[in-house]
Amino acid sequence: MAPRLVFSVCWFLLLLLLSSVCGGRRLRGESTALTLESVRKFLTREEDSIVFSLIERAKYPRNAPAYDPSYLGSPAKFHGLSLVELFVRETEAVQAKAGRYENPVEIPFFPRHMTSTLAPPYDFPNELHAAAAAVNVSGTIWREYLDGWLPQITSQGDDGNYAPTAAADLVCLQALSRRIHYGRYVAEAKYRDAPQDYNTAIRAQDRDALMKLLTFEGQEDAVKRRVEEKAKVFGQDVTLGKRADGGGNATDYKVDPVVVYRLYGDWVIPMTKMVQVEYLLRRLD
Amino acid sequence: MAPRLVFSVCWFLLLLLLSSVCGGRRLRGESTALTLESVRKFLTREEDSIVFSLIERAKYPRNAPAYDPSYLGSPAKFHGLSLVELFVRETEAVQAKAGRYENPVEIPFFPRHMTSTLAPPYDFPNELHAAAAAVNVSGTIWREYLDGWLPQITSQGDDGNYAPTAAADLVCLQALSRRIHYGRYVAEAKYRDAPQDYNTAIRAQDRDALMKLLTFEGQEDAVKRRVEEKAKVFGQDVTLGKRADGGGNATDYKVDPVVVYRLYGDWVIPMTKMVQVEYLLRRLD
Repeated sequence: MAPRLVFSVCWFLLLLLLSSVCGGRRLRGESTALTLESVRKFLTREEDSIVFSLIERAKYPRNAPAYDPSYLGSPAKFHGLSLVELFVRETEAVQAKAGRYENPVEIPFFPRHMTSTLAPPYDFPNELHAAAAAVNVSGTIWREYLDGWLPQITSQGDDGNYAPTAAADLVCLQALSRRIHYGRYVAEAKYRDAPQDYNTAIRAQDRDALMKLLTFEGQEDAVKRRVEEKAKVFGQDVTLGKRADGGGNATDYKVDPVVVYRLYGDWVIPMTKMVQVEYLLRRLD
Repeated sequence: MAPRLVFSVCWFLLLLLLSSVCGGRRLRGESTALTLESVRKFLTREEDSIVFSLIERAKYPRNAPAYDPSYLGSPAKFHGLSLVELFVRETEAVQAKAGRYENPVEIPFFPRHMTSTLAPPYDFPNELHAAAAAVNVSGTIWREYLDGWLPQITSQGDDGNYAPTAAADLVCLQALSRRIHYGRYVAEAKYRDAPQDYNTAIRAQDRDALMKLLTFEGQEDAVKRRVEEKAKVFGQDVTLGKRADGGGNATDYKVDPVVVYRLYGDWVIPMTKMVQVEYLLRRLD
């Protein structure tokens, strides 16, 4: 009996150990299953974050002084920075201290001004091909959001709330950047799913062929129509006993749904695809 | 003819001056019309911000280490602060530099750690009675949000994203604080509307009588049901060709609408009323 009892106890302890290690959460640093399905889920959820962030930014008017480098006074004092730029730099530094950029999903706009993290290391899943992971279009996102899209989602005016305005811009910028740079993960998932489809074009460093392989117009159209719908659903005035029917004018919503449709169609989707192409070009390095 | 011409020119110039001063925007520092209607509008819009912020916080799991003072290591090093507390202190300092707390609508959680603003002064409207404006329940909001409500809107788990988690908490805390402390403006608008209704109770420093004067159960019930509805509308998975009908289980939404109903009914509304009472008690000082 004794050996069987010892065997049973050992077996029980082994099971207990396995369940405590694998049961509650993934092993640290272990690659979670990056699949086409997990990527699709992430992108769909990010749409909500992006639409919320635009609606929250639109709560404040344009507030032009926040973007004017002369507003804070002498250019020498703040190196000619606008309030928004100074705000984002310093807030990113605080977020870096708290470990935000240890997760490769997150990319800062001002990496040179980062302080190192105070938080103990956390092994985030490492899904990306090392040689391709550094694809970065933050500069373009910053410029095109501020100059191109912001005027389209805000009304003219100045209410003096520059800090909440800058904070709202940062949330928009971070959500857009996370979505666009997630193109690296999208490309990795597609590549893992069917490497043979991409290898020839990668070896030939053929951008056009890669872009063609990554383009599914029907799918892109569905995404554009869905974010337009989200702008209607999330940007309506909810009142009791009345459900929005999706009709209505641009002025019925907190951000014009047509602008959100174009933001995705003309910018977010093409930028994400550009990131995918740049990533794949380095996928065999 | 000459005097009439001079008169006409002067009249024209006067009109031009008036329109340039008053037309585009309010006069700086001038009191905007604080009315029961403007207060109602502000509170209704804040509901959207609060529901969005809760949904965005619920994107991340509980992430308990971010709230554990022992997580950052030796207590002496960070004065026993949790990552979230350190994060909020330092982010508030950046926001103070950008002028956030110059607007009396905004109140920081850690005023002792503020740096002074770099932004040129902006004359925000001064609507509050000076002796009563300092009513402050930030400590209670901080504690009850973190200990009481956060566990109800987040799932168990730890994904290591402590900085985005802390950033999402700060957005929730700021929105809740702005709403609750707006009780000062609600009380001021009600007082201005009918001072005679309140003067006796204020002179007697009678809290119960003031609370009774400020309580409209039908109205509170409508607000609770509206925020529950907003949690359903904003927290649904929007898909093309399908509109949510407001039915469904708690699990169909990103934050349980019943929790949002209770958050308002059991906490936000009573806290706002408490702020109103405290404000009115000092309204004749």
